Parts: sequence; structure tokens; C-alpha cells
Amino acid sequence: MNVAHLLAEALPGRVVTDTEELARYRTDRSGHMAAGTPLAAVHARSIDDVQVVCRIAYETGTPVVTRGAGTGLAGGGIADSGEIVLCMGAMQEILEISTANRLAVVQPGILNGALNEELAGYGLWWPPDPASKDVSTVGGNIAMNAGGLLCAKYGVTREAVLALKVVLADGRLISVGHRTVKGVTGYDVCALMIGSEGTLGIIVECTLKLQPAVAGTRSTIGAFFPALEQAIDAVSRITEAGLVPAIMELLDRRTLECVGTYTAQNLLAQGSSYLLVQCDGPAALPDAEAVAGFIEAAGGTAFTTMDPDESARLVNIRRQAFPALESMGTMLVEDVAVPRDRVADMFRKVVELEDRYDIMIPTACHAGDGNLHPSFVYQGATVPDEIWSAAGELFAYALELGGTLSGEHGIGLLKRRWLGAELGDDLLDIQRQIKTLFDPRDILNPGKVFPASL
Amino acid sequence: MNVAHLLAEALPGRVVTDTEELARYRTDRSGHMAAGTPLAAVHARSIDDVQVVCRIAYETGTPVVTRGAGTGLAGGGIADSGEIVLCMGAMQEILEISTANRLAVVQPGILNGALNEELAGYGLWWPPDPASKDVSTVGGNIAMNAGGLLCAKYGVTREAVLALKVVLADGRLISVGHRTVKGVTGYDVCALMIGSEGTLGIIVECTLKLQPAVAGTRSTIGAFFPALEQAIDAVSRITEAGLVPAIMELLDRRTLECVGTYTAQNLLAQGSSYLLVQCDGPAALPDAEAVAGFIEAAGGTAFTTMDPDESARLVNIRRQAFPALESMGTMLVEDVAVPRDRVADMFRKVVELEDRYDIMIPTACHAGDGNLHPSFVYQGATVPDEIWSAAGELFAYALELGGTLSGEHGIGLLKRRWLGAELGDDLLDIQRQIKTLFDPRDILNPGKVFPASL
Repeated sequence: MNVAHLLAEALPGRVVTDTEELARYRTDRSGHMAAGTPLAAVHARSIDDVQVVCRIAYETGTPVVTRGAGTGLAGGGIADSGEIVLCMGAMQEILEISTANRLAVVQPGILNGALNEELAGYGLWWPPDPASKDVSTVGGNIAMNAGGLLCAKYGVTREAVLALKVVLADGRLISVGHRTVKGVTGYDVCALMIGSEGTLGIIVECTLKLQPAVAGTRSTIGAFFPALEQAIDAVSRITEAGLVPAIMELLDRRTLECVGTYTAQNLLAQGSSYLLVQCDGPAALPDAEAVAGFIEAAGGTAFTTMDPDESARLVNIRRQAFPALESMGTMLVEDVAVPRDRVADMFRKVVELEDRYDIMIPTACHAGDGNLHPSFVYQGATVPDEIWSAAGELFAYALELGGTLSGEHGIGLLKRRWLGAELGDDLLDIQRQIKTLFDPRDILNPGKVFPASL
Repeated sequence: MNVAHLLAEALPGRVVTDTEELARYRTDRSGHMAAGTPLAAVHARSIDDVQVVCRIAYETGTPVVTRGAGTGLAGGGIADSGEIVLCMGAMQEILEISTANRLAVVQPGILNGALNEELAGYGLWWPPDPASKDVSTVGGNIAMNAGGLLCAKYGVTREAVLALKVVLADGRLISVGHRTVKGVTGYDVCALMIGSEGTLGIIVECTLKLQPAVAGTRSTIGAFFPALEQAIDAVSRITEAGLVPAIMELLDRRTLECVGTYTAQNLLAQGSSYLLVQCDGPAALPDAEAVAGFIEAAGGTAFTTMDPDESARLVNIRRQAFPALESMGTMLVEDVAVPRDRVADMFRKVVELEDRYDIMIPTACHAGDGNLHPSFVYQGATVPDEIWSAAGELFAYALELGGTLSGEHGIGLLKRRWLGAELGDDLLDIQRQIKTLFDPRDILNPGKVFPASL
């Protein structure tokens, strides 16, 4: 029985078996590359199409890897030989925007940035803001429970989803969640789907909780500090004072060095760490003034602006971090999160690992929520063992500090071997049982998230 | 084998078999009364105690009904004959308050109000605010995913919980969620526990996400309208303008009549519906001014104040609704939620049902999130059939409008027969399987939430 043939017959015009296109689905932004090539890609145009794919997959026992824009950093959307790639990018309609109910109903393939452009015309926005937002899909953001720069103030993706339509492994369609802001009927299966990385069901329609566009001005502060500890001290002072900036990003010396080289400016002359803070809302100005005061008190030099160009320049120092590192080789971007008061410990660990392994680990941090991205740059197609070894030490230390393996990128393929260390045997076992409950034939993104069973 | 004896032996000093005390656990604030009396109550003092109870219950196949303060409105905490009542009220310690991490770790039996009193000293608060907050426990709030007046602005309980320790049916202890703001390792079992009404596990420790105390003034607006439609129109204008008041409560004519009688004032002379709005935060004053403008434009008369006493008087009209109705008989407080733009339809349905059934259904509404509380007052110990019949019509209509059976009170015993109508067969079946996965012997609050199986 040829699965590609069955698919092509059932869904004429939507199935691709061209090897050049299929080869693209062997990888994502994690840099990881599958050994083989998937058997076919289906470009779904409707919920019906997705149901047909699942029915064929279920009957033939064929794995289905659902894919948005392929911007994942943990290998969750990578397809290997013998697998169907279910591409959701063509399902990008906005089905409803309601200002009265502050919600939008969209197909999962719409890009986050495109949706927000449309919503702006209604005075609304959808807060999730992964760095990839201009090129990543809403469905992908939901499947990964995406984070971003704004989470400390505006929450993670889970808080921005009201309801979902989900196709189950066998092709049945269910609706989970509520169209209302409140709803407590039965278990929160909607929350279970969010962040499940395509392993429990396929998200085919999304009812999103919107917020009114933030009123008032926006004030941006860029600050250099002689020492990283001073920048962390400034963050503590800001937090303890009860301020909640929209953005609070911290770059270490190593990152500043890379960004400086990449953008041809001597950033290290200004300090060895950089803090970017943005305040918005009705109290943006007094908040920014208070933030600048805390920065100066902690030993930093703050530059505050409301000018859009100046602000873009300050923000750009942060935004260039990823491209700067990417220009140096292949990147393994790690994603640990620790309680805010342990961020300094985590940075110290990074320096210790750099010394001991004789590698560079430039690290940026969403300082408002303790989410660090230590980045390992390497040459070649696979992550060298010594880098995994250093990353493994990072993970273990994050757990020791009461933190987590992954703040926002997910587990995918790349971190599954460490999942058990965080969850413990009992919870890992429960999660496997949940997987089996939804996907008894193990066809939905198999091999992702969970470590290989014994 | 005598279960009460086994418990008393294992947990000396913590087990009560006094029938007078046990009789109290046959009911809660729903007014429903179990036919029988539970076999024993255990006042747990530690996680260990809870584990011991579960081990004995699991081995002997004895049901365990976990109970906070017994303030539930859906009968979720009611115990019947042959059941163990597990009382969590003695576990009320605050284990940690961290301003740096904006979190608190507490035992589940602490009262919401007591916790918030303590947090105020740190410039922090925990937002969930069910009407019962002074007398209900944090663990109970979490088990029910409690709502309240502030949800439209500050979210429901689910958004205010970072992590939980949970004792499983067989006595094992697991930790779910993250101590960090972000965390995406594996499935969100923490969200699954929140609102599970004691049917999946027993919450024994809670890591709560706190917010900084709201700075600035608070402005309160009380407004009377000649017609309910005008009040609803005002709410629409406020919402569409992108305003997010902390509180926005709507009372219908019938409720005003009852509150007027109860408090000896002629409220109906001022209008036939009442809207209470409270604005807080840095933009409280301009927001309140805008709100008052929308109220006047919709045909209402707004009275705005920042004086605490005057404000209390305006808020009190809303707060007296529940006691006023309770003074008239036993109450069945319903709890449907509908999309905000269908609130007017729901109110019309209430009036239609009043006429057709010849009963009174005073209705208050959290207007910011479309959550209505139509209240049926009756005499006697059990809900008359005709009231269930009218309530059943209400539920069906709420679902028709894209709403839900329960915005914040939960399913418990009282609404389980309608659960399937909302979830559909497939999702109901999945939820039953989740229940079986966590509680294979069906000993955790059995018979609650789910309709009786065939």
C-alpha cells in the first residue's frame, strides 16, 4: 500500500512528492537535519483535508508531522523517512474579528505578524511575540506555547487562546476551550493542547483572546553597565519596586562583542553588559524615569528616549544578537529559565562552562522572566558532543536552581533526553499515558518530546 | 475492614467520626444535601497525612472528597455515605513569599483573604477574587478555577498559578508546572489540575503567581439606567473603546428590587438597571471619565467618586445582591457565560423564562466577561423540578449563543447531567479517559463532574 498514492488520490492537487521540496522539511531553525526524507507533504486547505490525512495515516499507521512555518528551534517540526508532512501554511484565513468580544477566529497557518497587522486596524492585538513572529504561524505559536520579549507583562501564548478546534489522530474533530473569557466545564483540554508540539492532535482553528492596543507613549531605555552583576542588580531593583516593563532584555559581554563585530561598532567601549527596557501604557513616562533611576543607582548609564528612530537603535542592539551569532556558524540556542533571583547564578555558570570547555556561549536573557538563551556556535551539520555535554550541565544546573529546561522553545527532538530529569519518573509516565490516550497508534509527531522508551 | 478505624490508627488525632461534624460535610453553599453521612473526616496537617489517606482509600476502594471551606456552589465538595472527607483547612501555612520572583508558596488550606492580607505588606497580591474570597481557601479556588469580579482585567485562577504539588489517587506525590513564569517542558498537567474539582488529584502545595499591588487611585462609578438595554449598550461602548475596567457589574430590575427591599431603599426609583464600574491603575481617572461619558451617551446617569465611603456605598448595591436573595429562601445560583455581544439575548431569555414559568430569576452579570448569574429562589431542601427545567432551558440557550454552562462555579453534582451537551460525545469520552488515567479506581470525588455512565 503506497501512502503517498492514497493521499494524492484523496486530496488531488494538495500532495507533493517532489524530493527537493520534501528535503526542506528534514530540518527547521534548530539546524538539526533528519537522516531521511519524508514520503510526502500535504498542503491542507481545509479542516476536511486534515481529517482525510489523519484517517489515512491512522489506517496505515503512518506518522504525521504537522508543520507551520518551520521556525522551531527544538526540531519539533522535522520530518524523517516514512513520515507525512502536514503543511498548514495554506490555511491562513481570518474567519472572524470581534471587537465586542475581543477575539479573533483564525486558521492556524496565518502568520502572527500578518494577523497583528490586520488587528491593528481594529485597535486590537494578539500579544504572543516570539522573535520569529513575522515569519511564524499562529498555529505553530500555539503548538509550542511560544514566548517572546513581552511575556513578563503580557503573558505567554497559553493565556492568549480561548478555544481550539483539533483533529484527533483518527480524524475526528473536537472543539476545546470556550468562546467566552471564563469557562470551567470539565478538564482544560485546551491548555493541554497548547504546547503539545503536534503530539496530541492537529490544531485546525484558533479562537484567540485579543487585547486592546496599548494606549499612550512608549519609552525605551538602553543602558550599559561596567559589570553584568550591576545590570542584574538594576533588574532586581526594578522588579522589587513593582514595575512591570513591557520589555526587559539583558545581553552579556560575549553577546555585545559579537553584535559589535557584526554591526561594526565598538559596543564594549560602553560597557560589558547591556540592558534594554521598554515601558508602555499610561504610566510609560514615570515608569521609565523610575527605571532609569534604578539603573543609575546600580552603576549603569541609562539613555532614555521616546524618539522612534533612537528607540529602534537601542532595540536593534538586542535584535542583532541572533543574526550576529548566526553569521559565525551553526547555532544551538539554548532556552533555560530560572527563578528571577537565580539569573546571576545562571550567568556565572555560563562563564564557568566557557572556561572549562574552552568555548564561547554568548547569552541573552529575557530578564523580566528569567529566561536565558545561552547560544553555542559550532561549525558543521551536527552538534558536537562536547557542546551537548556543556548544554547538559546547563540544564542540570537550571533544574538545581528551581528552573526548567525550556522556557519557550519546547522539547522537540533536541531536548527529549533531558525531559525525564525535569519531570521525574511519575510525571513522565503520566505524560506518556496522556500521549497514548490521544494517540494510541503513536502516529502524531512520534519520537518528539518523549525520550525513547526502553 | 473498617476504614474509619484504619484512618484513626494511621493518623491519630486527625480523624473525626462525630456525626454532628460529619453532617456538615453533607452540604455546601449550593444548598444541595447528600442523602447519607460520610464515614469519617480527616483533618490533614501535612502532605504526608494526605498521602496516608490516599493509600488507605486506594487500597480499600473508598471514595475521598477533598474539601476546602465548603463554599462551593455546585456541590463539588459534598460527601455522602461511605466516603472519606479530606479537610484541608488546617494546612494553612505560607511557606514562602518572594518579591524578587513575585511568587508565594502556600499550603492549600489558607484563606484567599488571609493570604492577600499578608501579601499586602509586601506590596503584592494574588488576583483571584471569588465573592467568597474572605472565607474560601486558595486550594479550593484552584480546584474550581475560581473567577470573580476582576477576571476581565486580571484573569482567572488558572493564570495565577505557577506550579502545584499534587497527591495522586494511590498516594504518590508529583510536582506539576514551573516555578518560573515561562516553562514548556511536556504537557501542561498543572492546567489540567486547575478546575478539576478534586477528581484527578489532591492539591497539597501551591506556587502562586503574584502581581505588584495596583498603584494609583481607584475610581468608582455607579450608574442607573431607565432600561437594561441601555446599560448593556454602555458596556459595549466601554469595551469597544478599548477600556478595561477592573470591575464592571450589571444588575437587572429584579435584583434591584430585591436589594432595595433587603436594604430598605427604593432603588427602582432611580432606574431599572444598575451598572457598577471600577477603574484602577495609572489611568484610573481618565478611564473613569471616559466610562461616565459612555454611560451618559447610552442614556444612564453616572455618579463617579474616589471617596472610599461613597465608593463602598456604590459597590454595596452589588454586594448585597447575594444576601438579599438568600434572605428570601434557598437559592440556586446559575452561572452561564456567553460572548459579550450576546449578553442582551441572555437577559431577554431570563425575562421570557420568568414569564413562562411564573417564577422570579433575579440576574447579576459580570459584564466585562459575559458571565451571568441568574438566581432561582425556592423554598425547601431540594430544587423543584420546574426550576431545573427552567435552568435547563437557560443552559441550552447559553450553548446556542456560543457560551458555556459554567463560567466560574464548576460542574460538581448540580450540572453534571448537562456536561455532555456542552462537550459533545467525543470530548466527554476523552475527559472520562483522563479521569480514568489519573484515578483508575474512581476514588477521587467520584460521581462529581461527570454524568452517570450507562
